[in-house]
Amino acid sequence: MKVYLAGPEVFLPNAREVLDAKIALAQRYGFTPVSPGDLEIPAYETKRGHGLAISAVNEKLMLSAEMIIANLTPFRGIAADVGTVYELGFMCARNCPAYGFSNVARDHFERLKAYYGGAVHPDAQGRPRGPDGLAVEDFEMIENLMLDGGIEARGGAFVTREVAAEAMFTDLGAFEECLSIAARRLLARH
Amino acid sequence: MKVYLAGPEVFLPNAREVLDAKIALAQRYGFTPVSPGDLEIPAYETKRGHGLAISAVNEKLMLSAEMIIANLTPFRGIAADVGTVYELGFMCARNCPAYGFSNVARDHFERLKAYYGGAVHPDAQGRPRGPDGLAVEDFEMIENLMLDGGIEARGGAFVTREVAAEAMFTDLGAFEECLSIAARRLLARH
Repeated sequence: MKVYLAGPEVFLPNAREVLDAKIALAQRYGFTPVSPGDLEIPAYETKRGHGLAISAVNEKLMLSAEMIIANLTPFRGIAADVGTVYELGFMCARNCPAYGFSNVARDHFERLKAYYGGAVHPDAQGRPRGPDGLAVEDFEMIENLMLDGGIEARGGAFVTREVAAEAMFTDLGAFEECLSIAARRLLARH
Repeated sequence: MKVYLAGPEVFLPNAREVLDAKIALAQRYGFTPVSPGDLEIPAYETKRGHGLAISAVNEKLMLSAEMIIANLTPFRGIAADVGTVYELGFMCARNCPAYGFSNVARDHFERLKAYYGGAVHPDAQGRPRGPDGLAVEDFEMIENLMLDGGIEARGGAFVTREVAAEAMFTDLGAFEECLSIAARRLLARH
């Protein structure tokens, strides 16, 4: 089974090394991994043309895959990388099994409370809100409910793990757990 | 044409008012809008069950729509709301015309430079990176390239506008421009 390995690892200084480690792990569990960077980017004339070419290649790779494992570790803020989230929604619309992992164990509600310095209080209807008036989702979910919901509806799993800050984007323990769960479930079906 | 109105407006204290204003505008341009909250959420027993029910309803609404307009204004950080981005990826996978808007005019690269306090410098290969070593996308795009790329590949448009801080999530000028462009393009096809 071809699995698309989505995540912000492409932005790391040692992107190739981490992507290669993910590819090797996925193969060890019997999957055929595809990941950003697997296809050559066609020639382009402008920066924007370059970006569009990468987007087109990633979409092509997704269309060639039957499953996704998305690295949803909070990226430059309290939420997952939006490029990865786009890809998760894309694969969920195609009804592919979808797995997610995060190397931050605190859930969405806890991260939002920290973001607001603890100042989250119920409004007149009992709905928690930050000092800016914005509602704070409290659904016992790891991320925004569309992400947790999309993964669960496709029979996937969302695995979290607390890792050292310096290993936030390189620790592959939670990723490997996704592979292990997905491989077991696929075998159980046969 | 049925259009799904995605965005973080659902979190606002005056969510109903803003959603109703968006619905009225979409109707004025000839569209049949669907938006989160249009269907009753089935009974649930746990917080998580509630969240899953909302996710299922939103996916059902998306499957009933043929187009999306996504509010991609940076939300609680430098990037778009991840729930909205999931929905954009979802509708792009269905090959629906996709439109986006943002009430922040500064592009992705400028927002990242501000995030890093200006400390973005080219690495040995000429690729801009922040002080944490993470690559900084410089593709003359409004958001992560998967978002801009997905919208462009579906023949949509990504409209930005600078609005006053207090109107960040209520100003509907850029949203209306999306409606206007989409309506014109649909008419031109007939």
